[in-house]
Amino acid sequence: MSTCLLCLVLLFFSVVAEATYTPGGFHHLSSLRQKKKASKSKPELPFETRYFPQNLDHFSFTPESYKVFHQKYLINNRSWRKGGPIFVYTGNEGDIDWFASNTGFMSDIAPKFRALLVFIEHRFYGESTPIGKKSHKSAETLGYLNSQQALADFAILIRSLKQNLSSEASPVVVFGGSYGGMLAAWFRLKYPHIAIGALASSAPILHFDNIVPLTSFYDAVSQDFKDASINCFKVIKRSWEELDAVSTKKNGLQELSKKFRTCKGLQSIYSASNWLSGAFVYTAMVNYPTPANFMAPLPGYPVEQMCKIIDGFPRGSSNLDRAFAAASLYYNYSGSEKCFEMEQQTDDHGLNGWQYQACTEMVMPMSCSNQSMLPPYDNDYEAFKEQCMSRYGVKPRPHWITTEFGGMRIETVLKRFGSNIIFSNGLQDPWSRGGVLKNISSSIVALVTKKGAHHADLRAATKGDPEWLKEQRTQEVAIIEKWISEYYRDLRGEN
Amino acid sequence: MSTCLLCLVLLFFSVVAEATYTPGGFHHLSSLRQKKKASKSKPELPFETRYFPQNLDHFSFTPESYKVFHQKYLINNRSWRKGGPIFVYTGNEGDIDWFASNTGFMSDIAPKFRALLVFIEHRFYGESTPIGKKSHKSAETLGYLNSQQALADFAILIRSLKQNLSSEASPVVVFGGSYGGMLAAWFRLKYPHIAIGALASSAPILHFDNIVPLTSFYDAVSQDFKDASINCFKVIKRSWEELDAVSTKKNGLQELSKKFRTCKGLQSIYSASNWLSGAFVYTAMVNYPTPANFMAPLPGYPVEQMCKIIDGFPRGSSNLDRAFAAASLYYNYSGSEKCFEMEQQTDDHGLNGWQYQACTEMVMPMSCSNQSMLPPYDNDYEAFKEQCMSRYGVKPRPHWITTEFGGMRIETVLKRFGSNIIFSNGLQDPWSRGGVLKNISSSIVALVTKKGAHHADLRAATKGDPEWLKEQRTQEVAIIEKWISEYYRDLRGEN
Repeated sequence: MSTCLLCLVLLFFSVVAEATYTPGGFHHLSSLRQKKKASKSKPELPFETRYFPQNLDHFSFTPESYKVFHQKYLINNRSWRKGGPIFVYTGNEGDIDWFASNTGFMSDIAPKFRALLVFIEHRFYGESTPIGKKSHKSAETLGYLNSQQALADFAILIRSLKQNLSSEASPVVVFGGSYGGMLAAWFRLKYPHIAIGALASSAPILHFDNIVPLTSFYDAVSQDFKDASINCFKVIKRSWEELDAVSTKKNGLQELSKKFRTCKGLQSIYSASNWLSGAFVYTAMVNYPTPANFMAPLPGYPVEQMCKIIDGFPRGSSNLDRAFAAASLYYNYSGSEKCFEMEQQTDDHGLNGWQYQACTEMVMPMSCSNQSMLPPYDNDYEAFKEQCMSRYGVKPRPHWITTEFGGMRIETVLKRFGSNIIFSNGLQDPWSRGGVLKNISSSIVALVTKKGAHHADLRAATKGDPEWLKEQRTQEVAIIEKWISEYYRDLRGEN
Repeated sequence: MSTCLLCLVLLFFSVVAEATYTPGGFHHLSSLRQKKKASKSKPELPFETRYFPQNLDHFSFTPESYKVFHQKYLINNRSWRKGGPIFVYTGNEGDIDWFASNTGFMSDIAPKFRALLVFIEHRFYGESTPIGKKSHKSAETLGYLNSQQALADFAILIRSLKQNLSSEASPVVVFGGSYGGMLAAWFRLKYPHIAIGALASSAPILHFDNIVPLTSFYDAVSQDFKDASINCFKVIKRSWEELDAVSTKKNGLQELSKKFRTCKGLQSIYSASNWLSGAFVYTAMVNYPTPANFMAPLPGYPVEQMCKIIDGFPRGSSNLDRAFAAASLYYNYSGSEKCFEMEQQTDDHGLNGWQYQACTEMVMPMSCSNQSMLPPYDNDYEAFKEQCMSRYGVKPRPHWITTEFGGMRIETVLKRFGSNIIFSNGLQDPWSRGGVLKNISSSIVALVTKKGAHHADLRAATKGDPEWLKEQRTQEVAIIEKWISEYYRDLRGEN
C-alpha cells in the first residue's frame, strides 16, 4: 500500500516539472513507471464502489455538454448515522482507489465523528474517463479536463448524494492532498454552500503566476539535504559535472549504463540526470519516518539515510558514484531491483491527463538556480508553450488559475473573506514553498511543521509517527470538530 | 432616456415570465417592442467605447474554446486618479449603453470617490455577440451564453484593464441591478480577489429551485395594488372574467380589438390578457415617483395613479373598461399612441438571449394563485421543458444555479463566509420577494425600503426623489466608503 500514494506524489511533481520542458528539466517518468508496476495488485478497500452520471460540460449548454460520463466514487458508511457529517476526498490526478488507500487519516477519524466517507474520482482519471480510452486522445474531449469542471462535478455529486440519503442538512467537510488539496481549498472558496470547511494538505495554491519565486521548489529540496549534511549537499551538487564528463567521453553513455546498472542502454544523459534528480526530489517530498514510507525497512528520515550513504564513502570517492548509491536507495529500497529503467516512457493514462492540465491551466513555472544542488535551468515559457502546442494543440492560459481562484495578496483578500480552511504543510516538503504558511484569519489557518513531508498528515496513523505529525493531526481534528459543532449550533439557531 | 432602463426591466421580467410557458402566463413582448421603438435614438453617453478580446469558453480548452469575440465596454476616467477605486457595472441582458445611461448613481458618486467607471456588456447581448448575428441561431455557439462565462469575462477584463492602467492595487467595487445585481453579488462571492465588494440592487438570487414560494412574485404585484386601493385590486381581479366573456361571444375578438384600440385585429385572447397584466406588473416594478419614471408627466406613485383612474369611474362601470383605462396610462403615458400593438412579435436580439438563459440555467419557476389579482396559473415544468427543447434543443438544468451559487439556507452559509455585499430592495418591487431582505452578517447587509421599485437606487438622483430613496443611497455610499478605506488600510498594513 505504501508505494501507491507515492506514485501519485511523484506523478504530481514529475509532470509539473516535466511540463516546464526546459533543457535541464527533470523527467522522472521512468521512476514513476517502476512504482506503478509495483502497485499493480490493488489492495482490498473497505469501500463500496459507485458511479454517478455527470454532464461532460457544466459551463455550457452546447449539445456536446449534455454527453454523460460515469464518475467513480467510493463510499463507506460504517461509522455514519443519518444527519451526521460527510467527509469527502476531492480526488486528484489518478485512480481514486490509490487516494482512498493512502488517506487513512479520514478512515481513522470517521468513527469519532460518526462520519460518512466518500472518495470522488477526478474526471479523466482512473475509470472516470468520459469516452473511455479515447478520452486522452481527442483534443475535443480532453478540453473538458480541468479543475473547475472537477469542482462542479464534486458539487453536483455531493448534492445528489445527500438528497438520496435524505440527509441534506449533513455538514460536508472536504479533504485533499497535493493537487487534491488545492481542489479542497478551492471547493470551500467556490462552494461554501456545499462544504462547511476544507483540510487542504500540501496544497501549493501559490505556485502560479510568479507568486512565489520560480526557484523556490528546488531551493527547498537543496535545503533539506543541506540540513541533513553539508557534505551530502556538496557531493550531489558536484556530481553533475562528473556526469557530464562521463557522457562526453567516447562510449560515455555505455559506461554510464554499466555504472548505473540500466536495464537498457541509455539513450541520453538527460535520462540519467533526471533519474538521479528524481530520487533526491521525491525523497525530499516524502521525508518523514513511518511504515507508510517507501523506505520503511530502514529507520529514520529518508534524506538522512541518503546522506549517510553519501557521507559514508571513503574520502576521495567519486561524487557521481556516491550520488548513484544514494539514488539507488530510493529506487531499490527493497533490494530486489536487478536493473534500473531510466529512459522515459509515455503513459497513456493518468499521466497524460496531468501533462495536459499542466499545459492548459496548471501552469506552475519553475527554474533551478545555481545555488541549488540540482542541475540549474531557466524557466523557458516560450519553449514550454511550443511543446504544449505540438503535443496537445493547446495554448496554455498561464494567468487563468490566479484569475479564477486568486492567489495574489491572498492574505489581504481572505483576511476579510471566507472561512474554515486548514492549510497544512511540512516545511521539508518542497511543495510547501507554494503553500499558505501563515494564518490568514481566525478560521483560515496554516498548520505548519518544521519537518513534515508531502501530505503526510493524510496518511493513516502508525506507531512510528513522529510527535510533530501526531500533534498536527490532533490540531486538525480539533478544528474540524469546531466547524461541525458550530454548524449544528447554527442549524439549531443557537448561535 | 427614462424609457431605456424600463425596457430592460421589462425584458428581464417578461422573458422570465414567458419562459414559464404556462397557459395563463404573461407575454409582454408587444409592450417591450413599443418601448424599444421609443428608445431607438441612443443618448450621447460620457463614455469611451472599447472592445476586449475574450475566449468563447473559459471553462474548457477545446479548439472551439479559443475562438475570440470582442466584448464591448464603456469607460469614463474623468474623476479617476491612478490607484483610485474602479466601479464596474456587471452588465446584464441587453445593450450596455442602456444600462450606462440608466445607472446614473455610479456617475453621481464617481467624483466623491475619484472613481473610474466601467460598464461591461454581457456576452451575447448588444454588440458583444461572439459570431455576429448568427450567435443567436446556433445552438453550438449559444451554449456559451451563461452567467458563469459572463462572470469569468468580467474577471479577465478587469484584471487586464488594471494591468494596462498600471493600477493593479486599485480596489474594484461591482454594481448591478436585476440580473446584473445577481451577477454583481455572485461576482463578489466567486471572485473576492478581484472585487472588494458588490452593490446588488433588486437581485432575486433566491428566485430559484423553490427557495421562495412560486406565487410570491404575483402576490407582491397584487399587494401593491391592494395597498393603493382595495377597490382597485378588486376591479382588476374581476376584469378577467369580463375579458373571458367578451372573447367567447360571436365576433368577440373583433369587439375586443375595437375596445382596446389595437393596431391590428387580435388573434387571441391571450394577447389582450398579457397586455393588460403586463401593464400592472411593470407598473408595480417601477412604482416610485421621479422624473426618471416613465409616467413622469403625472405626479406621485404610478400604482396610485392607475388606481385613481380605476376608482374614478362611475359606479357600475365595466371592470374591463376600467382595467383597460389603467393599462392605457402605462402604454400611453405621453398620450401620443394612436393604437396599441398587442400581438407578440419575436425579437432576434437580446430578448432571445434571455429566453435561452431562462431555458437553460435561469429557471425561475412561478405560478399565480387564486388570491392574486392576475389570471391564475400553475407552474407546469414539463410543458416548460418541452418548449425549451423544441425552441432551442436544450434541456433546462433547474438545480444548477443553486448548486453553483447557493441560495438554500443562505443566512447560515453566508453568516460565516464572505463579506461586503449590499442587497438593496424596495418591497413594492415584486422581484424583491426573491431577494435577500435581512442582514446576514455585519458586512453582508440588506437595505430594504418599504416603498421602492426595481433597482431605483441605481438611477441618477433627481430633485423629485422621495426621502426613502435618498436615505438608501446615502447608506450605500457610506458602506462602500467603509469597504474602500478598509481596503486601503489593509494595503498599508494598518489593520
